[in-house]
Amino acid sequence: MQSPNAGASTTAAAVPAGSNARSADIRAPARIGDPLSDIDTPALIVDLDAFERNIARMAARVAAMRASGGNPALQLRPHAKTHKSPDIAARQVAAGAVGVCVQKVAEAEALVDGGVADVLVSNEVVGRAKLARLAALARRARLSVCVDHPDNVRQLSAAMVEAGATIDVLVEIDVGAGRCGVPPGEPAAALASQVAASPGLCFAGLQAYHGSAQHLRTVAERQQAIAGAVEKAARTRTMIEALGIAVPKITGAGTGTFEIEGASGVYSELQAGSYVFLDADYARNHAASGSTFAQFEHSLFILATVMSRPVPERAVCDVGHKASSSDSGYPTVPDIEGATYVGASDEHGVLRLERPGPLPALGDKVRLIPGHCDPTVNLHDWFVGVRAGRVESLWPISGRGPGF
Amino acid sequence: MQSPNAGASTTAAAVPAGSNARSADIRAPARIGDPLSDIDTPALIVDLDAFERNIARMAARVAAMRASGGNPALQLRPHAKTHKSPDIAARQVAAGAVGVCVQKVAEAEALVDGGVADVLVSNEVVGRAKLARLAALARRARLSVCVDHPDNVRQLSAAMVEAGATIDVLVEIDVGAGRCGVPPGEPAAALASQVAASPGLCFAGLQAYHGSAQHLRTVAERQQAIAGAVEKAARTRTMIEALGIAVPKITGAGTGTFEIEGASGVYSELQAGSYVFLDADYARNHAASGSTFAQFEHSLFILATVMSRPVPERAVCDVGHKASSSDSGYPTVPDIEGATYVGASDEHGVLRLERPGPLPALGDKVRLIPGHCDPTVNLHDWFVGVRAGRVESLWPISGRGPGF
Repeated sequence: MQSPNAGASTTAAAVPAGSNARSADIRAPARIGDPLSDIDTPALIVDLDAFERNIARMAARVAAMRASGGNPALQLRPHAKTHKSPDIAARQVAAGAVGVCVQKVAEAEALVDGGVADVLVSNEVVGRAKLARLAALARRARLSVCVDHPDNVRQLSAAMVEAGATIDVLVEIDVGAGRCGVPPGEPAAALASQVAASPGLCFAGLQAYHGSAQHLRTVAERQQAIAGAVEKAARTRTMIEALGIAVPKITGAGTGTFEIEGASGVYSELQAGSYVFLDADYARNHAASGSTFAQFEHSLFILATVMSRPVPERAVCDVGHKASSSDSGYPTVPDIEGATYVGASDEHGVLRLERPGPLPALGDKVRLIPGHCDPTVNLHDWFVGVRAGRVESLWPISGRGPGF
Repeated sequence: MQSPNAGASTTAAAVPAGSNARSADIRAPARIGDPLSDIDTPALIVDLDAFERNIARMAARVAAMRASGGNPALQLRPHAKTHKSPDIAARQVAAGAVGVCVQKVAEAEALVDGGVADVLVSNEVVGRAKLARLAALARRARLSVCVDHPDNVRQLSAAMVEAGATIDVLVEIDVGAGRCGVPPGEPAAALASQVAASPGLCFAGLQAYHGSAQHLRTVAERQQAIAGAVEKAARTRTMIEALGIAVPKITGAGTGTFEIEGASGVYSELQAGSYVFLDADYARNHAASGSTFAQFEHSLFILATVMSRPVPERAVCDVGHKASSSDSGYPTVPDIEGATYVGASDEHGVLRLERPGPLPALGDKVRLIPGHCDPTVNLHDWFVGVRAGRVESLWPISGRGPGF
């Protein structure tokens, strides 16, 4: 699992090979070899042992599903919108992933620049400037993208023709999330026909991702939602095949449901991303007995410093909205019994202590588990990899940013 | 109001003078002179006319309060955690601000690097590495900082002595927000005595900021909360003066309450920051009749592109959690009647349309007003200044980041 970038220094003269100019020249909160106590805060730290176990567990589970009666072509294509890091993508590919997903052209550029050879933009790309960049990228790596509108198919084709590029195209269908995607069935088949007939485009199949199913808490709710998605995807595939058009792949699934899509026999690629880190919100999902989901460990933490101890029952730390996204709830506090993160402001997090006392003391470091990993990662510039209490790696979050 | 940086180009060879390496080398979403329609999205745009009017209105109001029976020494020290931009700070100082506030050492470094001469870190700074950076900065600019713990006072003094620097120090008191700050009265007086006796530290007065009062909706609620803050600050000042220690300033206030602290005669510096932009959450505050608050205009917008139109009643845009903070509610949609931003995921915002139809069309640009300006600005790397439909300025958000 050792990558060429492990052990990279933070100095501008020794930027990790897998980075781009976006963040590698920004000061890192630690140096290789530092003890945990010397990491400046707020910092995003990765417990490398837990992180590597998560990657190995997911790889093993996908291999097992492939071997045991599911789709024999089943592949893992982890979502890199979670980490935006070529260093992490390289480790996922080394463990057997076929490539990665991203959500934006800027992320795709960061990952291709960092050496990833096969990238699916699991989203629509709209607008002349972005399409031109996508086409330029399609000349440098194996690229695929989603569509859900005939105008977008025309513009995508024109951009590819102009650049002399080709790209794999998936028709996105709405399988219940109520976000992007044409309705399943006839509208999707019509769009598939248009793609198949468009120069520069290669029809690659269907994107059938059920985003809102990922955080349904009970196993039964998730099974029911994905059963509907499987039916819609299979029915749409049949309609497209009836037009004489092959449907090479059906892609979708997330960390909350990948075992259901993986066992369906219908899906051929799984897009789970959060499994590498497991955030506090995913940990609230009930797990099916014997599932690999239940084995994932928290590997991502926000390291905070206690910067005020005004009264015995309150500690204030330096992690607020600008270091931890609160869209899926506040961070949890795994290492201090009876401590709850009860309020965030821009640069402060208030911890309420059930057992008032002198601890944690002013200046103490506290680990927090983010409520939602993806937007929290997006607030930081570096992953600080830690093993046995010391900093082992510094990975730039090359794809960070709003993503135009 | 024209700064030396207006008209700066986005190329690395012509980085705006007021920037540091943090974001100026990151691609900007537009070029000077571009029409609004050519700005790539998601982008943070500033309506320069409204922005300049907000700055002028605040400056005029503070001058009027100073002249009319309030504290004759009253000054505006706008909070730069809102914008993290030396370019904007320069415009506030040019309009009469005495300097700016920041919340973190990293922000202070970005602003001093960008030419700001007087910076208050309106927060506690804890930890050896940060204190050393603060001391280095105090040799380059007029710096002040807050304290609320005797151990921190000792460490701060040691860091200043080691660097051969001096710094102005404010004792922070908790006037009702329940976050940082010692209790008013005796504990604050004890800390003031310690500061006054510490080498390298110059006791500068009290920080008495009531954060949670800013968004109380009614005028009466805010008046009541600030009346309590004024009483606590005045009482604490009296106790410190009784020890023979002068209290040169009392600093606090935000955009929601500055007119109350400003009229109190007790506060000498006002820290309002959001007034330059006015976000959707502040716009939900009721305004006192005849107040300057009521005159502030929305000047900050997130520019989005409609990237999916799957069904007539839904448009999906490219602004989600990674381009707009949702901690104080979703963005509002000022330019499309009957459109509501009803759901965010990482890279998507779902607009529900009361009048289903073809508009907005795929590819259309849509302006959104952020729910909360500070953490939204923190997600972006550039302010795109717009006037009369064209890009006039590009200002790097130099202090962006979690802020270690």
